[in-house]
Amino acid sequence: MPYFDDLQVGQRGELGSFTFTAELIKAFASQFDPQPFHLDEDEGRKSLFGGLAASGWHVGAVGMKLLVAKRRRETEAAEAKGISDPPAGPSPGFRELKWLKPVLAGDTLTYSSEIVSLRESASKPEWGIMQARTTATNQRGELVYSFIGIAFMPRRI
Amino acid sequence: MPYFDDLQVGQRGELGSFTFTAELIKAFASQFDPQPFHLDEDEGRKSLFGGLAASGWHVGAVGMKLLVAKRRRETEAAEAKGISDPPAGPSPGFRELKWLKPVLAGDTLTYSSEIVSLRESASKPEWGIMQARTTATNQRGELVYSFIGIAFMPRRI
Repeated sequence: MPYFDDLQVGQRGELGSFTFTAELIKAFASQFDPQPFHLDEDEGRKSLFGGLAASGWHVGAVGMKLLVAKRRRETEAAEAKGISDPPAGPSPGFRELKWLKPVLAGDTLTYSSEIVSLRESASKPEWGIMQARTTATNQRGELVYSFIGIAFMPRRI
Repeated sequence: MPYFDDLQVGQRGELGSFTFTAELIKAFASQFDPQPFHLDEDEGRKSLFGGLAASGWHVGAVGMKLLVAKRRRETEAAEAKGISDPPAGPSPGFRELKWLKPVLAGDTLTYSSEIVSLRESASKPEWGIMQARTTATNQRGELVYSFIGIAFMPRRI
C-alpha cells in the first residue's frame, strides 16, 4: 500500500488467481443471488450462460478478496523491513463494471489492475484519488470482467 | 419479471429492507474483504468510517439478494394466476456505483429501484436493454448507495 505520491499512471499489478468451483458458486448464490443458473448445473446449461455460472457479484467480491490479500502481503513485507505502511483509504465507488463473459464452474480467473488516473483531492489535501482498472481473464486468456475502481490513497504530508 | 414491452421509464419499485448486524458484516468481510474496519469494532471506530462498517461489496450483494427475492415473489404471484413469467436475462454490467455513506453495524437499509432508460437491442431482437438505478437509504433516510444496473429483458415476440 504505497503513498499516493509514489504511484504512476500505467502501473500494473497482478492480484492473484481463483478457481470458481461448483461448490463455491452455489454457496455464494444461495446466500446472495439464488437464481436457477447460479444454483443448478442443468438450469445453467439451459440458460444463456451455457453452464453453471458464478454470480457477477461473486466475481466482484473475489476480486476484492484478492486485492486485500495482496495488500496484506505488501504490508507484511514492508513491516519485515521496518517500514510502517499507511492505512488504506475508503472507496467512494466505481465506474463501468462489465461482466463480459460467463464464469462457469471450474473456471480459473486471474485478476490484475492498472492505474488509469491520479489526482489530488481538492477538499481533502491529505488524500489523493486513484482510479484503477481491474480486469479478470479466464484460463483461456479471455477477458471476462472489468471495472474502474476509485479509491482515496494517503499522501505523504 | 414483466416483459420489456410492458416497462416504462420512471417505474419505481421497493426491493425490501435488510439489517446489517455486526455478525453478518464480519462474516462477509472475513470471506471477501478482511480489512480491519470491516472485522473489528475498535478498528472501525478508529477509521474514517467511525464504526464497524459493512464492506461495499456486501452492500451490493444484499441488493442483489433483495432483487432476486422480489422477482421470486412476483413469479409466484403470477403462477398463482396461471401466468408463466419469462426467464430473466443476464446483466452485462453496471455504471456509476457509489458508496455515499458508511453502512455501520445495526443500520437497516431499504433498497428501491427506478427504470432510467429502455432501448431495443440492435443485435438481439428478442431482448430489450433496461437501465435501472438502484438506491439504498438507511433508517435515517440518508442515501448511502446507488448504482445504475443494465439488464437484458425478454420481449414479447
